[in-house]
Amino acid sequence: MSGKVRIALDAMGGDHGAAVVIPGAELSQQRRPEAESLLFGDRAVVEPLLAAHPALKAARFTHTDVAVAMDAKPSQALRQGRWKSSMWLAIDAVKRGEADVAISAGNTGALMAMAKFHLKTMPGIDRPAIAARWPTLRGESIVLDLGASIGADSQHLVNLALMGSAMAQVLMALERPKVGLLNIGVEEVKGLEEVREAGRILREARPPFLDYTGFVEGDAIGQGVVDVVVTDGFTGNVALKAAEGTARQIEQYLRGAMAQSIWSKLGYLLARGAFRSVAAKIDPRNANGGVFLGLNGIVIKSHGHTDPEGFANAVDIGYDMVRQALLEKIRRTLMLNQSEAPRLAGGTVS
Amino acid sequence: MSGKVRIALDAMGGDHGAAVVIPGAELSQQRRPEAESLLFGDRAVVEPLLAAHPALKAARFTHTDVAVAMDAKPSQALRQGRWKSSMWLAIDAVKRGEADVAISAGNTGALMAMAKFHLKTMPGIDRPAIAARWPTLRGESIVLDLGASIGADSQHLVNLALMGSAMAQVLMALERPKVGLLNIGVEEVKGLEEVREAGRILREARPPFLDYTGFVEGDAIGQGVVDVVVTDGFTGNVALKAAEGTARQIEQYLRGAMAQSIWSKLGYLLARGAFRSVAAKIDPRNANGGVFLGLNGIVIKSHGHTDPEGFANAVDIGYDMVRQALLEKIRRTLMLNQSEAPRLAGGTVS
Repeated sequence: MSGKVRIALDAMGGDHGAAVVIPGAELSQQRRPEAESLLFGDRAVVEPLLAAHPALKAARFTHTDVAVAMDAKPSQALRQGRWKSSMWLAIDAVKRGEADVAISAGNTGALMAMAKFHLKTMPGIDRPAIAARWPTLRGESIVLDLGASIGADSQHLVNLALMGSAMAQVLMALERPKVGLLNIGVEEVKGLEEVREAGRILREARPPFLDYTGFVEGDAIGQGVVDVVVTDGFTGNVALKAAEGTARQIEQYLRGAMAQSIWSKLGYLLARGAFRSVAAKIDPRNANGGVFLGLNGIVIKSHGHTDPEGFANAVDIGYDMVRQALLEKIRRTLMLNQSEAPRLAGGTVS
Repeated sequence: MSGKVRIALDAMGGDHGAAVVIPGAELSQQRRPEAESLLFGDRAVVEPLLAAHPALKAARFTHTDVAVAMDAKPSQALRQGRWKSSMWLAIDAVKRGEADVAISAGNTGALMAMAKFHLKTMPGIDRPAIAARWPTLRGESIVLDLGASIGADSQHLVNLALMGSAMAQVLMALERPKVGLLNIGVEEVKGLEEVREAGRILREARPPFLDYTGFVEGDAIGQGVVDVVVTDGFTGNVALKAAEGTARQIEQYLRGAMAQSIWSKLGYLLARGAFRSVAAKIDPRNANGGVFLGLNGIVIKSHGHTDPEGFANAVDIGYDMVRQALLEKIRRTLMLNQSEAPRLAGGTVS
């Protein structure tokens, strides 16, 4: 895609709302000057912030005094916030073709419900997914689904593999990303038929645009054994949070240990650069930005509690997904798959 | 329980077999002299090792030249290894009342299949579970199930909560352990009815022997927010491995970063004690030993690739479970529950 990338921003979303969204959007704007921002939010809050962040002075601003609460139930948000909330208006801009991507740090459930309701799923896709980057020893991988769907039949897992590989093509410039299905190594266990069946379908169909490598276990994700890790939303969400929690736990152990003695304090000072480089590698802000896949439009979910740098990363990934034509790549992947390997597509492609 | 604790050891189990089991058992024997070892394995391998580890000279040894392969399917192991393999004989010693606990570093699936087949599940328990310790910022928690059962209805989750709290009573000397159900915080998602229903049952029944505190997310496990984290075996296994993988990943980052410059190398030397204390906290050997819960007998699974120190920790936890009467506590918990809160017990308690 050439020309400007038009980015619709829910200025009121997230724990800190506009106070993070506006400076974050400015940071991204400075890094990607080809972007054009459309802001939706409360004039009283947003206008003073815009004045203080001049790189956004070209942004188009639309006032609304309705914002979706962080703890609203999705159904409630949809009922009360449709047509008028800042979150809805950002999605609506994508729907009406006025923006290329919508970004919000607001309530995940509400954002997914509104995006699904308004943008609808792509042909052949029943359930959208949330995909995000996971830092690994080799760089980064994509993990999906991170919470949009609980449980998954084999067809849904295959769709996740196809969409995730399209995203990996975009994000990592890979022609044929390595894809693995998350599984456990305990042989006696029954009940994994869906995962086994999805593996069988992917292995037999040998899709030209992804390299299915088999099952991976939880500890293989961080090793970067594959580019795309596929699982259902419950397991993916738990795995991601368990990993994030472990990283924070070790950080706290290290902080405590380095303060133990005069020697460790001195050692810390000398090795400060090394500590910083490790901290940067596991900084969750760097991987911020969950990409909703399977919708007729690109929607990005930022962590609600991130800071401007983290939010800017979510905007950046939205920009890159548009620039590299994610939607077209997903459509091509699903269609190629439909024509070349009909069995991959299931019965729902229209 | 008073008197000796009789420990049946599968001397052939694990990636390194007797070469780890024998020195590991000796280590544990030195720490817990009240233990009495019963060893099952191949004379040609075990006897020379016993000669080299004199603290085990009182051990009773039974020869068998059948060992379960690490990659055998459970059904195959059961068919070929029943009545005669070292793994079976260790379990059989518990069945016949000659040992109080069986310990193996062998094939998890085979061990669970044999243990379930021979020892049978307790009344009221349909499916056994694997529980293990998880290091946290507050000490350690128990997480279950780690792979014995895929998927879980609400009754199974309630049973896991009851059995996990009995294990926490034993391991942490708590009267009323805090128990949480693992869940994800994405509200729009459907399909969590089992988890919600289990939560409702535990909240309404208010069992006297556990303190149900609600849902916890993946990142709360390492914070030690609760003493017992309950989930199905698929999710539990993935969460544990994702956390272990993250710990190893950060360890590798640190190792690389500390070798970057002369300053970081010097810093590392000065802070070596601090690094060691952190490494000890996340050392998987310390948490080694998965406890099979829900069977008429105690069986402990050691990691297959551990070293003698790790194996000794698995033996230690087996010893402690016997010494603190784990089985009686589980039975009491299930019965109390049956009499005081019939709805907790489901329809299967005889």
